[in-house]
Amino acid sequence: MDILEKFYNMDVISAKQFKRSDVEDLIELSLKIEKNKEKFTNALHGKVMAALFFEPSTRTRLSFESAMLRLGGSVTGFSEAGTSSVKKGETLADTIRTVANYADVIVIRHSKEGAAKLAQQFSDIPIINAGNGSQEHPTQGLLDVLAIHDLKGTVDNLNVGLIGDLKYGRTVHSVAHLFSNFKSNLYFISPEQLKMQYRVKDSLTLKNTNFVETSNFREILPKLDVIYMTRIQKERFADLEEYAKVKDMFILTEDDLKIIKEDAIILHPLPRVNEIDPVIDSDPRAKYFEQTYYGMMMRKAILASVLLKDPLESLK
Amino acid sequence: MDILEKFYNMDVISAKQFKRSDVEDLIELSLKIEKNKEKFTNALHGKVMAALFFEPSTRTRLSFESAMLRLGGSVTGFSEAGTSSVKKGETLADTIRTVANYADVIVIRHSKEGAAKLAQQFSDIPIINAGNGSQEHPTQGLLDVLAIHDLKGTVDNLNVGLIGDLKYGRTVHSVAHLFSNFKSNLYFISPEQLKMQYRVKDSLTLKNTNFVETSNFREILPKLDVIYMTRIQKERFADLEEYAKVKDMFILTEDDLKIIKEDAIILHPLPRVNEIDPVIDSDPRAKYFEQTYYGMMMRKAILASVLLKDPLESLK
Amino acid sequence: MDILEKFYNMDVISAKQFKRSDVEDLIELSLKIEKNKEKFTNALHGKVMAALFFEPSTRTRLSFESAMLRLGGSVTGFSEAGTSSVKKGETLADTIRTVANYADVIVIRHSKEGAAKLAQQFSDIPIINAGNGSQEHPTQGLLDVLAIHDLKGTVDNLNVGLIGDLKYGRTVHSVAHLFSNFKSNLYFISPEQLKMQYRVKDSLTLKNTNFVETSNFREILPKLDVIYMTRIQKERFADLEEYAKVKDMFILTEDDLKIIKEDAIILHPLPRVNEIDPVIDSDPRAKYFEQTYYGMMMRKAILASVLLKDPLESLK
Repeated sequence: MDILEKFYNMDVISAKQFKRSDVEDLIELSLKIEKNKEKFTNALHGKVMAALFFEPSTRTRLSFESAMLRLGGSVTGFSEAGTSSVKKGETLADTIRTVANYADVIVIRHSKEGAAKLAQQFSDIPIINAGNGSQEHPTQGLLDVLAIHDLKGTVDNLNVGLIGDLKYGRTVHSVAHLFSNFKSNLYFISPEQLKMQYRVKDSLTLKNTNFVETSNFREILPKLDVIYMTRIQKERFADLEEYAKVKDMFILTEDDLKIIKEDAIILHPLPRVNEIDPVIDSDPRAKYFEQTYYGMMMRKAILASVLLKDPLESLK
Repeated sequence: MDILEKFYNMDVISAKQFKRSDVEDLIELSLKIEKNKEKFTNALHGKVMAALFFEPSTRTRLSFESAMLRLGGSVTGFSEAGTSSVKKGETLADTIRTVANYADVIVIRHSKEGAAKLAQQFSDIPIINAGNGSQEHPTQGLLDVLAIHDLKGTVDNLNVGLIGDLKYGRTVHSVAHLFSNFKSNLYFISPEQLKMQYRVKDSLTLKNTNFVETSNFREILPKLDVIYMTRIQKERFADLEEYAKVKDMFILTEDDLKIIKEDAIILHPLPRVNEIDPVIDSDPRAKYFEQTYYGMMMRKAILASVLLKDPLESLK
Repeated sequence: MDILEKFYNMDVISAKQFKRSDVEDLIELSLKIEKNKEKFTNALHGKVMAALFFEPSTRTRLSFESAMLRLGGSVTGFSEAGTSSVKKGETLADTIRTVANYADVIVIRHSKEGAAKLAQQFSDIPIINAGNGSQEHPTQGLLDVLAIHDLKGTVDNLNVGLIGDLKYGRTVHSVAHLFSNFKSNLYFISPEQLKMQYRVKDSLTLKNTNFVETSNFREILPKLDVIYMTRIQKERFADLEEYAKVKDMFILTEDDLKIIKEDAIILHPLPRVNEIDPVIDSDPRAKYFEQTYYGMMMRKAILASVLLKDPLESLK
C-alpha cells in the first residue's frame, strides 16, 4: 500500500465500484489507523463533514460522526429531513449544491433509490452513500468485510450465509457485491417472498461467484463460517400480513448454537428486532456488537482516504 | 479598515443597524478571511456558538455552523423547538437567559417578529438574528450584498430587481434596507397582493433611495443588473387559493435569458420551488448556488467580528 | 483534594452513590476548573461524548455539550429518539452496546425509570444519567448543591425548602438524597397529592436527616435560606383535572419577597411555567438563571473526572 491517492476525492456510491485490491487497501488502512489511533487525532483538522440523514439512523450516523471527530474533523448536518429546507419543497439537487459549498464531504442517507448517485451529479465534493433505498449501503458492506477479515483472518474460502430479508435489505446487497471479489461461497437463505434480487445474482454470475439459494435455514447453518443475520424490515412491506407470516421464520435460537461451527462468527448489521435470541449475545461467536466498532474503523479509513491525498500523512 | 473593534460584542438584529461603512467593512473582512482562510482555522478556538433554530433551515444553520467550525469554534443548539424545553412551556426569554450562560454567541431563527430583539434584552452575549418573522434576515441581506459586490465589482449604480413575494419575504426587506446605503436603483416587482411593505418603503424614502414598484415583470427584466428572485412562500398564506393564483406569475424561464442583460446576475436566497426554470442553472449568469458560498464567507466575518476584539488577529 | 482518580471511569447513575466527601470533591473541582478555565480548553481533546436524549431538554443537553466542547472534547448523539434506530424497534440495551463502541462517555436522558442503570449494564464506557423517569437526575442535584455552596458559602446548617411537585419531580429527589450528606434541615412543601415519595423519605430517615413535610407554603417561607421551586409537570399527570387543581397553589409572588429572608436564595431547576412571577427575576435573591451556569461548571467537573485519571492534569 504505497499510494492510496487513488481514493482521493472519490465518491462512495455503490459496493460495485470496489475491486479486490481496493477492498484490501481499505482494510489495511483501517487496521493501520486503528493501531496508531493516537497519531491520527488531528489528521482531518479543518475539514467539515456534512451528515445529511433524510432517514433515521443510530449506527451509521453516529459512527461516521465519531470517526470524523476522532480524526480531528468537525461535523454539521441534520438527522431528519423535517428540520431542513426539504420541508419547504427544496429538491435534493438544490440541497446538495448548497451543502457542497459549506462542507468538504457529504455523507447522505436517503429512502430513495439512487439518491447518492443523484447527489454525486450536483456536488464538487465527495459524496458518501450511507444507505439509500433498498439497493445500496456500501460502507456497511465494507465494514462487514473488514470485520470478517479481522475475525476470520481471511475473506476467501469461507462459507458465508446471508440470512433474512434478501430482497429489501440494502446491506446484504452491498455485502454480496463486495464478496464477488473474493473466493468464498455465498448462501442466500431467505423466505421465498424475500429472495435475493435478480440484479444482484446476475452481477455475481458475471463475476463467477459461487452462490446457493435456499429457504432451508437449519440445513445450511452447520456449514457456515459467517452467519450474517438481517432484520426483516416491517417498513419495506406494503402488506402487514405478509410481514407477519415471514418475520418469525428465520430466527437464530439457543438451540442453533449446538449445530453451528465452533469457529463460526455471527454478524448482524443491526438494529435487530427478534432475529437473534438475546441469550446468544453472550456466546463467544456472537460478534454483532464488535462489528459496530469495525464500522467506526472503516469509516475513519474512508473519510481519511477521500479527504487526504495521503491518508497516512499522520504517520510520518 | 484599521479598527474593526466596533463590531465586538455587537448584536445583529436588523439590516437597518448597518450603515454604508459597516457594510463595506464586513465585505472587506469577508474577503480577507477568504483569501487567508488557512490562517483562520483556529481563530475562534474555545468559543461556543449556540444555534437555536425554532424553525427549519438548511442554508442558514449549516452555513453558520460551518463558518464557526472552519474558524476553529464549536457548536451546540437545536434544529427544532420540539427537542427543547419550549415543548414544556418555557418562554423564549428564559431559554435565552439559560443559553447565554453556556455559549459565547447565540444564533437564533424564529417564526415570531421581534424574537431576536426580545432575545437581545435577555442576553449578555451577542445575539445574531438568523431570520425572524417576515421582517428581518439581516445576515442573508449582508451575504447578498457581498455576493453582488464581488460578482459585479460594486454595489452602486446598479439596477437591482427584487422579485416575487415582497410582502412576506423577510430576505427582500433586509436586502432593501442594506441597499438604502448605496446609490443603486431598486425595482420592486411583485403581484399586487404581495407588494413591498410600507414600513420598508417609508424607510427607503427617508434615505432618498430610488425605487420603482411594478407588477410588470418582463418589462423591467432587460434593465436589471441584479435579478433577485424569491420564493412565494406557501406557509405565509392563510388562504391557499390566493397562493395558487400568484405562485406561477413570477417565474424566470429559458426565454427570459434572451432578454436579460449579458452581464446580469441572477440571485435567489433559496430554497426555490419553481420560480427559476432549472434549465437556467447552467447559464453563466445564474449565481444562486455561488451565492450560498458567500453566505459562509459573510457568516465567518460576522462571527469573528462579534467574538473577537481584533477579528484579524490571525493574520499577525 | 490530592487524588481524584476515584471518579475515573465511574458511572453517574444516582445521587445516592455520592457521599459527603465525593460531593465536596466535585464542588472543589468545579470551582478549580472555573478559576483556571483557559487552561482547560484542551483537557478532553480527542474524547467523544455521546448525548443520547430520548426526551427533550434544553438546559441539560446544552450544558453537557458546552461543558464537553469547552474542555476541548467533541460531541455526537441525538436529541430525540425519533431520529434513531429506536424507531425501528431497537432495544435500549442494543443502542447502548453500539454507542459504547463509538464514544468515550454516554450521557443519557430517558423517560423510563432505571434507564441509566440498565445502560450501565451494557456499557464498557461511563454512563451519566441526565435524568430518567421521575426518580433521578443526579447531575442536576450536584449542580444545585454547587450553586448553594457557592452562593451561601456552605451546605450545612441551612433551612432548605423544596417546593412544588415532590412526587413526580426527579430533581427534588436527587437534591434530597445529596442533602442527606449534610447537616441542613429540609422542608418538603407540596400539595397533598404531590408529597415526597416514601422511598426518598425512608432513605433520609436512615441517614438521620431532618425533614419536615407541609403544605403550608407561606408559613414556612420566612424560615428558608434556600427556596427551591419546581414546576408542577403536566406530563406527569394522568388526570388533567387533578393537574388544574394543584398547579396554581405553589406560586412565588411579588408579595412573598417581603416575607422571605434578606439573604435567602431562590432556585429553580427550570423550565418554569408560572411557579415564579417574572417580576421576581430582577430581585437579587433570584438565582435561578445563575444556577444554570453552575450546571455547566459541575458538568465540566463530572466529565473531566470520569474521563481523566487526573482531571487536574491541565494545571500542571
